[in-house]
Amino acid sequence: MIRTSLKRICFEIIPIGNELLLGEVLDTNSQWMAKKITELGGFVTRITIIGDDIEIISNTIQEALKRKPSWIITCGGLGPTYDDKTLVGIAKAIGRELVVNKDAVKMLEDRYKLLVEKGIVKNGQLTPARLKMAMIPEGAIPIPNRVGTAPAVFLKVNDVKIVSLPGVPSEMKDIFEQSLIPLFKEDIGKIHQSELFLEVSDIVESKLAPLLDKVLEGKSDIYIKSHPQTVEEGRSKLLIYITGWSHTKNEADEIVKKTSEELMEIIKKQGGKVIKSYVRKRD
Amino acid sequence: MIRTSLKRICFEIIPIGNELLLGEVLDTNSQWMAKKITELGGFVTRITIIGDDIEIISNTIQEALKRKPSWIITCGGLGPTYDDKTLVGIAKAIGRELVVNKDAVKMLEDRYKLLVEKGIVKNGQLTPARLKMAMIPEGAIPIPNRVGTAPAVFLKVNDVKIVSLPGVPSEMKDIFEQSLIPLFKEDIGKIHQSELFLEVSDIVESKLAPLLDKVLEGKSDIYIKSHPQTVEEGRSKLLIYITGWSHTKNEADEIVKKTSEELMEIIKKQGGKVIKSYVRKRD
Repeated sequence: MIRTSLKRICFEIIPIGNELLLGEVLDTNSQWMAKKITELGGFVTRITIIGDDIEIISNTIQEALKRKPSWIITCGGLGPTYDDKTLVGIAKAIGRELVVNKDAVKMLEDRYKLLVEKGIVKNGQLTPARLKMAMIPEGAIPIPNRVGTAPAVFLKVNDVKIVSLPGVPSEMKDIFEQSLIPLFKEDIGKIHQSELFLEVSDIVESKLAPLLDKVLEGKSDIYIKSHPQTVEEGRSKLLIYITGWSHTKNEADEIVKKTSEELMEIIKKQGGKVIKSYVRKRD
Repeated sequence: MIRTSLKRICFEIIPIGNELLLGEVLDTNSQWMAKKITELGGFVTRITIIGDDIEIISNTIQEALKRKPSWIITCGGLGPTYDDKTLVGIAKAIGRELVVNKDAVKMLEDRYKLLVEKGIVKNGQLTPARLKMAMIPEGAIPIPNRVGTAPAVFLKVNDVKIVSLPGVPSEMKDIFEQSLIPLFKEDIGKIHQSELFLEVSDIVESKLAPLLDKVLEGKSDIYIKSHPQTVEEGRSKLLIYITGWSHTKNEADEIVKKTSEELMEIIKKQGGKVIKSYVRKRD
């Protein structure tokens, strides 16, 4: 029910870590990112959780690249240990070498200097394990990590931007908010969102379904979702959620308004009643 | 670091629902299932979250089939509403028609009869929307849903078993425990698991990494993971987790024992100390 004839900015999220597949850790990062991206007007199309395996990481990145999203965000596997394989996998996927990046080395030196000053680390030296975090794919750009140590990594493959974030939620969130949201905003640009809720009664969802399909036909960038309000009997009361996107706020409002009017007319023709309509403010 | 020369039973999980991609709902189902499957000795290799889109569901199922896991578990999109598209997508992926399944109809009739008796539903009739839940791919077998209404669906495509579960956690869990675990156990059969923890000190993880690779080389079904115990300075203290699988418990124990002995020897040669080793009981 999501139409994409307007050029929406699509994102794929790829959390990486055996602990996620073993069920040891719940992936809360993806939902957090998806919510932020949706609020910005972006569109998460797929979340693929995989393990710390170079071959699988490489294949998964290649598959994602073929679907041509605007952004691929990997999460996890950037640390100093041997099972942190994200960047090796990405480099393999795109046929680039891992190289020591001077800016990343500088970021790590600064970080460890600060950690020594704060008394968190005794020895600030860049050991081989620490230096591993400055080995990034050729042509990639490191992004500072103000919470942990491993820099995030940004690179472009043709029209697709790949960004690799650490898996520790506090580090991921800080980098996402500080460094990524501005980039995403630039990309998503002038895409505005509008939303509306309709509460209707005396119409069953199954009767509404083919009508919704008709309303949506030929429309660009309208998303409609209906929720029965009382689980069983309540097919008689429905909450309908309409979202529209366009290049201006006015246009988005107009799309949603027009769609809701069409919908209300159809509902009334079918003997349904519109109880109320309202706009929710995003929290 | 997961070797699979022993025929491990692999699972892919495919949660389906726009609400997951919009960040409205956190997918807790996959972790719950992954934990259960791991405990049974199975191996979740991928979790792919996608939206309610027939084309995308169909493509994702086809991609998963190509990787030849033993099981594909979809979760969500079985309900009566127009945006429940899981079975249409699966049918499309495998080139089968959706047909009204008599057993599924019987399950729905029984369920609604009970709901009427309990006073939860006034009208127990199978409306077209309700009947939709009995439309399953040709050759598939419905599995009773004792908590909600939509039956789960089981089908086989060559050697791959596909099972579609409802997305409501209480329904998913009940069907998983009642109907799937026995099937999984049959498949996973005589694969036994053994595990051991080593606490070591005075060796840095980066030094350990290439040694672990050596220990693992040529070994079947050993999984080793190391965690630094004190985040920064603590590269001097590590927790190493070793898991092994085999066809008998004794063999699995033996694999883990032998691996841990090799590992301890190597650690000592490098100047490291083994503080203790212990077996964790699964909770």
